[in-house]
Amino acid sequence: MGLLSGPEGCVLSCSMLSPVRARWKTPPMRSYAAFEISPALMCYLGQVGVSVVGRPRRVNRGGVEVRHVRWTAGRTLHRMPSDPTLRGGNATSEFIEVRRDDGVVLITLDHASTRNALGTEMAAELYAELEAFESNDLDRVLVLTGRDPSFCSGANIRRFDETIGRIEQEEGARAERQPLPWGDMEARLGQRASEKAEAGFGSVSNVPLRISEVQKPTIAAVNGHAIGVGLGLALSCDIRIASEKAEFAEAFVRMGLVPGDGSCWQLPRLIGLSNTYYMQYTGDRLSADEAYRMGLVSRVHPHEEMLSAAMEFAGRLASGATYSMSLTKYLVQRSFDMGFGDSLRLAQTAQELARRSDDHKEAVRAFLDKRRPEFKGR
Amino acid sequence: MGLLSGPEGCVLSCSMLSPVRARWKTPPMRSYAAFEISPALMCYLGQVGVSVVGRPRRVNRGGVEVRHVRWTAGRTLHRMPSDPTLRGGNATSEFIEVRRDDGVVLITLDHASTRNALGTEMAAELYAELEAFESNDLDRVLVLTGRDPSFCSGANIRRFDETIGRIEQEEGARAERQPLPWGDMEARLGQRASEKAEAGFGSVSNVPLRISEVQKPTIAAVNGHAIGVGLGLALSCDIRIASEKAEFAEAFVRMGLVPGDGSCWQLPRLIGLSNTYYMQYTGDRLSADEAYRMGLVSRVHPHEEMLSAAMEFAGRLASGATYSMSLTKYLVQRSFDMGFGDSLRLAQTAQELARRSDDHKEAVRAFLDKRRPEFKGR
Amino acid sequence: MGLLSGPEGCVLSCSMLSPVRARWKTPPMRSYAAFEISPALMCYLGQVGVSVVGRPRRVNRGGVEVRHVRWTAGRTLHRMPSDPTLRGGNATSEFIEVRRDDGVVLITLDHASTRNALGTEMAAELYAELEAFESNDLDRVLVLTGRDPSFCSGANIRRFDETIGRIEQEEGARAERQPLPWGDMEARLGQRASEKAEAGFGSVSNVPLRISEVQKPTIAAVNGHAIGVGLGLALSCDIRIASEKAEFAEAFVRMGLVPGDGSCWQLPRLIGLSNTYYMQYTGDRLSADEAYRMGLVSRVHPHEEMLSAAMEFAGRLASGATYSMSLTKYLVQRSFDMGFGDSLRLAQTAQELARRSDDHKEAVRAFLDKRRPEFKGR
Repeated sequence: MGLLSGPEGCVLSCSMLSPVRARWKTPPMRSYAAFEISPALMCYLGQVGVSVVGRPRRVNRGGVEVRHVRWTAGRTLHRMPSDPTLRGGNATSEFIEVRRDDGVVLITLDHASTRNALGTEMAAELYAELEAFESNDLDRVLVLTGRDPSFCSGANIRRFDETIGRIEQEEGARAERQPLPWGDMEARLGQRASEKAEAGFGSVSNVPLRISEVQKPTIAAVNGHAIGVGLGLALSCDIRIASEKAEFAEAFVRMGLVPGDGSCWQLPRLIGLSNTYYMQYTGDRLSADEAYRMGLVSRVHPHEEMLSAAMEFAGRLASGATYSMSLTKYLVQRSFDMGFGDSLRLAQTAQELARRSDDHKEAVRAFLDKRRPEFKGR
Repeated sequence: MGLLSGPEGCVLSCSMLSPVRARWKTPPMRSYAAFEISPALMCYLGQVGVSVVGRPRRVNRGGVEVRHVRWTAGRTLHRMPSDPTLRGGNATSEFIEVRRDDGVVLITLDHASTRNALGTEMAAELYAELEAFESNDLDRVLVLTGRDPSFCSGANIRRFDETIGRIEQEEGARAERQPLPWGDMEARLGQRASEKAEAGFGSVSNVPLRISEVQKPTIAAVNGHAIGVGLGLALSCDIRIASEKAEFAEAFVRMGLVPGDGSCWQLPRLIGLSNTYYMQYTGDRLSADEAYRMGLVSRVHPHEEMLSAAMEFAGRLASGATYSMSLTKYLVQRSFDMGFGDSLRLAQTAQELARRSDDHKEAVRAFLDKRRPEFKGR
Repeated sequence: MGLLSGPEGCVLSCSMLSPVRARWKTPPMRSYAAFEISPALMCYLGQVGVSVVGRPRRVNRGGVEVRHVRWTAGRTLHRMPSDPTLRGGNATSEFIEVRRDDGVVLITLDHASTRNALGTEMAAELYAELEAFESNDLDRVLVLTGRDPSFCSGANIRRFDETIGRIEQEEGARAERQPLPWGDMEARLGQRASEKAEAGFGSVSNVPLRISEVQKPTIAAVNGHAIGVGLGLALSCDIRIASEKAEFAEAFVRMGLVPGDGSCWQLPRLIGLSNTYYMQYTGDRLSADEAYRMGLVSRVHPHEEMLSAAMEFAGRLASGATYSMSLTKYLVQRSFDMGFGDSLRLAQTAQELARRSDDHKEAVRAFLDKRRPEFKGR
C-alpha cells in the first residue's frame, strides 16, 4: 500500500476493495483530484494523512461515474463521504447503535464492558457514521448519547501499557525531557507534528475534531458519566443536554496525561480559566447542576425524560432551516479567530448564501401568507 | 455623483449640499485628505465605501476652515463627524428620539408600527446620531433604549420579499449552491466581499459595528423584546441593563437566515458555545433572568424603574474619567486578538496616555487633598 | 554597568556580585549563551530587557560549573533561575512571607501600612520568589494570599504624584493628545513600545505576566480586598479560591487610569464583556458570591476556613502529576491564539511528552496493580 504522487497522473493503490486512480490538477496545498472513491479508500486516505475538503461532485465520464474531490495534505479538514450503499439506515454494530427518525440520527455509544470507552474500533465506527450522517441529505441533526449508565468513560487505560512499552523502546534515541516542559514544547512548535502524532491523529483523538467539523447541528445527550475523552466528545457537539445523573470530569491528570481531546480549547471558552484549571488539575467530577450553572450544558432533565427531550429538541431543529444553521455554525467557529468587523463581513457573505436558499424564500412566503413554513434544509 | 481619484488632486462631487475638494497625500491604504466636509459628504463617503479614521483636525487655510481627515478605503472603521450646526441638541425624528442630559445622550428607537424594527431609514438616523455623539466633546455616555413595549423587533421582514425577487433575477449567472455550505464559504474567503455585501455594509448590518466602534461608553437599556438584529444592537453596546420584561432572541433561523449582526462573534464570548447554538438554532426567547444568569446582561430592574436606573448609572459614568474608559474599551476590544503578554504591553502604552490626562492629574490631587475629584473626560 | 555585545565573545558586567562572561552562539532573536549566572545578573538582565527562556542547563567546564541559557531580546518570557543557595526555604522579608510545606509554596503579601499594596519593592521580592519557586524541583504548587484583612490593595497612589511631575516636564516635547484616544493608540501600534513603557515593564506591571508564565500550578487564595493591580494578581493565578470576605474591584478608572495589569485580557474571557465593562467603568466592588456566580472564582469558603481549604487543595495538586499539569497549562494558554484543530494537534505533541513521564508510567502501573499511584511531578 503506498501513495504514489507525480506532477501528472498518480495511482493511489488501495489494498482492501478496489484500485483507485487519482489525478492532481495543481501540486501545492489545495488541488483537485478525480477518482473513484470507496470506503476503503477513505479509510486509507485518513491513514496517509490526506484530507478531502468539501463534498465530492459526481461526474459521468464515458459511462463511469467518478467523483471530483478537493483535497489537501497536512490539513485537518476531513470530508470523506460514505458509500451510500453501505450507510444510511438503522444499524447495530459492535460498539455503536444508529437509529434514524425523521431527519434525526441518534448514535448510541454501546459497549457495556468498558462503559462505552472510546477505543480505536469504536472511533472507526463513529467516524464512518459521521461521514454517512454528513453526506446523506436526509440526515439533518445528530444526537450523540451513550447506553446507560455511562455516556463515555474515556479512553481504554489497559491499552496505555502497550504504548508505554513501545515508547520505552524508542526512548534511547530521544533527547532527554526537561523538568519544566514548556521549553520542550516551544522547541516542537513550528516543527511538523511528529510521525507518531500524525499517525495517532485520525483515530481516537481525531473524533472530537471530526464531530466539530460536521456541517450540521449536533447535540450531545449526556446520560451519565462523560469522563476524559468522553467529555471531549460531549464538548465537540454544538449543544449539550444532560440528565441529572450526568457527571463531567477531565480525568487525564490522574493518568499523568494531558487533555488530548480539545478540552484545552473548549473549556476555557465555556466555563472560564479558573474552573477549567480546577477541573483539569484535579480530575474532579462536575455534577449536571454545576455544569448547567457554568454554561457547559444548556438543559438538565430528569434522567428518564432526558433522551426523549433531546430527541424532541433535535426533531424541532431537523424540521427547521438547517441550511442556515450550518452557515451559522461556520460563522461561529470562524469568528473565534477574527475581529468583530471581519466577523460581520463574513456574516454578510453567509447571508448572501442564505438569501438564495429555498428555506429563506419559503419562510418569507409563509410569513406573508400567515402560515407555518415548511423547511427542507436547502 | 462619482468618485474621481488620481495621484494628485481629486474632486469628490456631492450632489446634496456642497462640492468638496479632496487631496490625497499618499496613495495606499491610509492617507490624509484635506477637504471641507458636510453631512451629505459623510453620507456619500459611506455609500462609496470610503471610511474616515479618527477625528478631523480643523485647519484655517486662507480664511477657509478645512478639515484634515485620515481616511482609508476598504476598511470598516468609520469616523465621520456630524456637522455640529445640525446635531447636538434634543431632537425627535421619524424613527428615533434623542435627549441630552448632563453628558448622557439617550437615544430611543421609536417606531410604533414596526415595534421599532431597524430599517434603512432608522439605521441612517441612528448612524448620524452616533456620529454626533462621538464628535461632540460634551457627550460622554450613550444610552440606547426603545419605546415600550419593544426594544427593537429586528429587521423589517416585508422588505425581504423585494430582495428575494432581485436575487432570483441575478441567480442565473451564479454557480449553484452546494447542499452543505462550508465549501461555498471557504471559496468566498480571501475574496473581496462581493459588491452586494459591500453595498449592504454601511446600512442596517453596519450599525452594530458602528456602535461597537464608538470611542465612548455605551449602554443598552433593554426595555422589551430584543429580537434578531435588535439583539445585535444590544450586544454591540458595552453594557446591557434589562427590564424584567426584556426578552432576547436570535430569530434569524426562523427566516432561514444567519445572524448578520455580529452575534456569531459576540454570543460565544458572552454565554458560551452551547447556549449560543441553542439560541441561534432555535430562535427561542431568553428571559431577562436567564440572560442575567448567563452574563448577557449585567443588571435586571423592575420595568418601571429600569430606564431611570440606567440613566442614573450612565450619569455616574458621565461624571467619571471617560477618557480612561475610552482607552479601556480600546484595550478590551484589541485584547481579543492578542496573547496575554502583548495585551499587557499595549496596556502600558495606554497607561502612558492616561497618565497625561487631566483626569488622572485631578484624581491624584483630589486623593492627596482628600476631596472628590471632578472629572472632565479629557 | 553596561551590556557589551559582539558577534563573538561578550562581557556582561554586573556591578553587584560577580562579573559574568557570556558568549553568543547565534546573533538573532534566539540564541544560546554560556555564562555564570547570579541573582544580581538576573536582576540586571531584566533591567536591560534581555529575557532568558527555559531552564538553564548546567555544564562543567574545566572545573567551573557554567549554565547554558537560551535567551532572547525583546520578548517577554522571563525564565531566570534563583541562586538555590539564596532561595528555597522559609523566609520573612519586608514585604512578603514565604512558607514551604510538602511541595506547596505559600507566599503571603504582608505590608500592613499599605494593606499589601504592590509597590516596586514588593514586586521585586515577589519576582525573586517566583523564580525560586519555578526553578526548585521540590516546589510544585504556589498559593498566593495576603495578610488579613486585605489580599492586595493595588498600587501605591502616593507614588503617582511623582510620576505626574516627571511626565509634565517631558510633556512639552510631545504631540498633543486628541480628545478621543483611539487614533493615538493606533498611531502607537506597530511602534516599539516607548522607552518608558519598556522600563516600566519588568516592575509592578510585569508581575501578573510573570505569574501567568510560571510553569507550575498557581492558586490565589483571596482572603480580602483584591483591588486594581491586586485583582490583576489574583487573575494571573490559574485558580482563584475566595473567602466570603473577599471583594474584587477594577479601581483604575477612579484614578483616571486604565487596567494596566492584564485585566483587559483576562476579565472578558472570565465574566463576559458586559460585566467586564461594568467593573472597569465603575470601579465598583464585586462580592465573593457574585464573583463565584460569574466564574471569576471557583470556590468560596467561610473566612476562617479559606486558607486551610486552599492549602489542602494545593497539597492535593502537589501530590499529583504536576508535570502533566504544566503541559496542560501550556496548552490552555496557547489555545487562546489558535483554532480548534491546531489546538488538538498541539495537544498530541504534549501528550507525547506526557506519555514519556515517570508519572504516567507510574499511574498505569498503579492502575493495573489496583493501588494508589505515587506521583513525583516528572
